[in-house]
Formats: sequence, C-alpha cells, structure tokens
Amino acid sequence: MPASTVVQALPFTGAQLDRADELRADPGRVAATAKSSEARLVAAGLGDVALESGKPRLLRVPADGRLDPSTAILLGLEAGVPLFGVDLEALGESERGELLAGARRATLREAGMELSRPEGGLAAYASALLNWHRTHRFCANCGARTVIVDAGLERRCESCGAHHFPRTDPVVIMLVEHEDRILMGSRSGAPEGRYSVLAGFVSPGETPEDAVIREVWEEARIEVHDPAYVAAQPWPFPASLMLGFEAVGAGGEPVIGDGELDDVRWFPRQDVAAASRGEAWFQLPGEVSIARTLIERWLARAP
Amino acid sequence: MPASTVVQALPFTGAQLDRADELRADPGRVAATAKSSEARLVAAGLGDVALESGKPRLLRVPADGRLDPSTAILLGLEAGVPLFGVDLEALGESERGELLAGARRATLREAGMELSRPEGGLAAYASALLNWHRTHRFCANCGARTVIVDAGLERRCESCGAHHFPRTDPVVIMLVEHEDRILMGSRSGAPEGRYSVLAGFVSPGETPEDAVIREVWEEARIEVHDPAYVAAQPWPFPASLMLGFEAVGAGGEPVIGDGELDDVRWFPRQDVAAASRGEAWFQLPGEVSIARTLIERWLARAP
Repeated sequence: MPASTVVQALPFTGAQLDRADELRADPGRVAATAKSSEARLVAAGLGDVALESGKPRLLRVPADGRLDPSTAILLGLEAGVPLFGVDLEALGESERGELLAGARRATLREAGMELSRPEGGLAAYASALLNWHRTHRFCANCGARTVIVDAGLERRCESCGAHHFPRTDPVVIMLVEHEDRILMGSRSGAPEGRYSVLAGFVSPGETPEDAVIREVWEEARIEVHDPAYVAAQPWPFPASLMLGFEAVGAGGEPVIGDGELDDVRWFPRQDVAAASRGEAWFQLPGEVSIARTLIERWLARAP
Repeated sequence: MPASTVVQALPFTGAQLDRADELRADPGRVAATAKSSEARLVAAGLGDVALESGKPRLLRVPADGRLDPSTAILLGLEAGVPLFGVDLEALGESERGELLAGARRATLREAGMELSRPEGGLAAYASALLNWHRTHRFCANCGARTVIVDAGLERRCESCGAHHFPRTDPVVIMLVEHEDRILMGSRSGAPEGRYSVLAGFVSPGETPEDAVIREVWEEARIEVHDPAYVAAQPWPFPASLMLGFEAVGAGGEPVIGDGELDDVRWFPRQDVAAASRGEAWFQLPGEVSIARTLIERWLARAP
C-alpha cells in the first residue's frame, strides 16, 4: 500500500458533520431543533458506541422528545439532519434499554476497525465530546457547577464567569529508525508480548518535535534528531490527538528510562515484517492505531 | 532566510530543562530540593514574566526558604540547578516587591522577541504551567479542591480520585495560497489594519488537517485541500499549541463566515512583501508569532 493510502485509511479520522455554528449560538433554535421530528440521537458510553444491528453504521435513533433542550449536546448537521449526542452512562437501565432496542454496543476500537472513515470519525467525535461533558461538570476555576452553552461545545460557570471548552490532549507517537531497525517498547500493563513505538503527552510550552526528542530520551535513553511529522489521528481514550512522527535515532543500546516500559529494544526489519504477518514471538499494535500505520508505512518503504 | 532557518528561529520554542521525573515523583526529595540553597525561582504572572534588569534573561532568584514544599511547582533542572515556578498573581504586594527587587517585568510577547530560544522556551513553559495551576484549583469532575502532586505536573482530587494534567489546546494556523496570493483576515477586536492568516482550535475527534479545512470554510467560505504541516509553536496565551500548516485554496472570493473576522481577502505577493517592510496600508502579525513565520517563509520562496 503506498504511504499516502495508508495514512488516509486511518480509523477515527474523517467525520463529515456541519458543526452548525449559527444554529448552536441560538438557544431558541437549538431547543426547537431538539424537539423536532428530524432530530436523531447518537449514543456513546465510557469506551463504547451504539451501532445498528447487522450494519456497519452508528445508531441514529429518532429523538422522540427524549432531549432536554437545556442540556442537549448538538453534534452537528448531517446532510441537514440534526444529530445529538447521548451519554449512555447518564441513562437509567430502562431508558438505556429502550434507546438501544435492536441495536448493539461495540467498543470504540471495534467500531474504528469496522466502520467507514466518516462513521468512525463520527464515533470518535461523539465519544470525545461526551467523555468531556461526563468529567467536566464543575468549574476548575471555582468549583461551582457549570452549564452547557453553545449546544455542547462549551460549558460556562455562572458563578465566576469562566468559559470552558472541550479538552483535546496532544500526544506525540514516533517511529524511531536507526540502520533499518526501529525502536519499540512493551508498556507496563500491556498484553504480554505486545510491542509498539513510543509515545507521550506534549508538555506545556513544548513543541511536538521537542516532545519527540524528550520522550524517547526519558523512556529509552536514545538520542533522536530530525523528527518529521507524518499524520495525526484522534484517539478518544478519552480525548487525545495523536501526532505521528518519524525520527532518526542515534543508535546505541536502549535502556528503560522512566519506568513506563517493561522492555525496550531495536527490532530489525525482517522481524517487524514477520510480526506484521503474525509470525513473530511478539505482537504489533492493532490496525486501528496510528502506531500500526507508522510501522506499516515504514515496512512498505524500500530499505 | 532559508525556510528551515525561519522555522528554527521561532520564539517560545527550545526550552532545555530536565523535567526530573524521578526527583518529582518523590515528595521527600522535592521538599528537600525546595528548601535547598540551590533552588531558584522563575516568576510569571498573567501574561508577563520577570526578567533580569539590563539583561535578556529570565530572572532566577534564590528561593531562600520562600517555597512551601506541599505546593512547590518544580519546572525542572537546569544544568543541575532546580528551578521552581512562582505565580506573581498569587503573591501579596510586599512579597512581590521583594521578589522582583532589581528585576523588570515584560509581557510574554516582549520576552519572546527579546530572549534567546532556550530562555523564551523557558518563559513559555513557566507561563503555561502557572496559568494552568491558577485556573485549575478545583476538580472538574466533582468540584472539590485539588492538590498538587508530581511537583506540579499533576493535580489530584482527594475527594473523587480524579487525576488532572496540565492542559494544552491544539490550534491550527494556516497559510492558504491560491495563484500567488494568500488568504488573510482581520480579526474582530484586533488593532486597526492588522491582517493575519486564519487559525482555530482543533475540535474533539478531529485531525489538524480536518480542522484546517473546516476552519477556512467556516471563517472565509473558501475550500482548501492538501494541508501540509510546517512547524509548531507553543503559545502560552494561556495554553495553546499552534500547529502551522500550508494549504492550497480553491480560489473564489472569500466571504466572512462565522463572525470571528471583520474582513477577509486575498493578498497578492507584492502587497504582502510591502507589508513585511512596513510599507503597506495594512500590518502583518508581529515577528513573535508563527503566523509571521508562515508568511515570511512563503515570501522567501520563489513564486
């Protein structure tokens, strides 16, 4: 697969919703839209989403008056149809059962593999936004309860006046190459034998390139240079944005740095290729992740 | 200036501190370090930092027992010297006066222009981290007060157990070109005659590339394709990470989309070059910003 095709096929990218900024800025119109017969609900929980039974498609249930206009979270307009997000964790058992009648629940990872790019992108967006609302009901500045404004793209504190916007955490993930080998580690708590490229959160006041260099040093004591951006992937577990890089390692034996890894080592090309076919002593990350994309892209290039 | 030189010279990049992950994970060692004679304080307020008088250098004041170990924010080690961050907004007038004796205060923008890259990067890091602590004293999940852990790289809620990490907001900023013209807008509330390339926050579940396409459509009703990453810049106002892109515009007349701009139009190369020399009817963004870097990089390329 050519590199560009690999990157374009990344799961969780490609949501195609109109965010409807004008509509969402008008609470009266939002309320009318939430009560309209066109309104549909997209449901997600902590780590899973609701799919149509037997179809590779997110569930879209008629709202049928279920929405409270003051707390409705408008995802956007899909070819004119208003889609609202519903947090499955916030529903009682009978409400949830009624909403999901005839539907099935899939983990986000399963959904990312099974769905088309626009559907997977919508799953990522709905999950990320609902995750944020679920864990941000209070004002970080003063501790008071916050209210939903902008139909769910903001929460506001009526006590201290602070505005709160959905949070997205930039994370770097990097394929580090040295003489036709790549650096991979086994994360503490990961499945036995699972190795992946290194990753870490971007710190305050840091560029992604700085973060690539710092994280590889902290985790493996390998110096890297020339980090080059490849592609990005939303990773709503709960709200990350993975920024994929390639970088050149200075060589030397990696050493576990900061305790996040159980093991870290260089893997030669033929071993990585064998693992990609499922014929090695170790496993690569799943195809849903940009980690696997970076690895397959490297394998696809002539050495 | 070659493109790579332009990008490397970006203000606010290049902090060179060891974050000292092992040290900060040990509260006893952090307390001893905060009380040691080596400890130095770097001071920042809401939008400004303290500099040495007469030198292009951040102030580093001996801590002299001023730090409370339970709330000390360790920025990191600078050639072995522990640097702690102090929020000027949290000090009383006399404490602040004593701390700043012989120092001067500069806005972050001034500091970004005046300081070397490592010093400007440290200013950005200290400001971003102190901004976050100032506005995140309470748990967004349950509303209780949070405590500082990991010597300032985390806040934890002892009531519900939630972990909170410093927030960094990814923002795309994009130079859109069409037939040797670039798209710039004048933002509502900006100084009269100031035009810049467009920018906007990355939404949940969205890639930066998606955000480039969406934002240019929302703000200017121009279709763009082939967004390509150029470079990034921390922008601690209060906690953004600017992801700089170039993209190709489909042409057509831009129209103000969502009300964030007062005006938006195509600017031909000769007009942008004149503005870069200060000889046009409009002003470009200041040299401290990645916006200006994207513009100068485009000007430096042969058409």
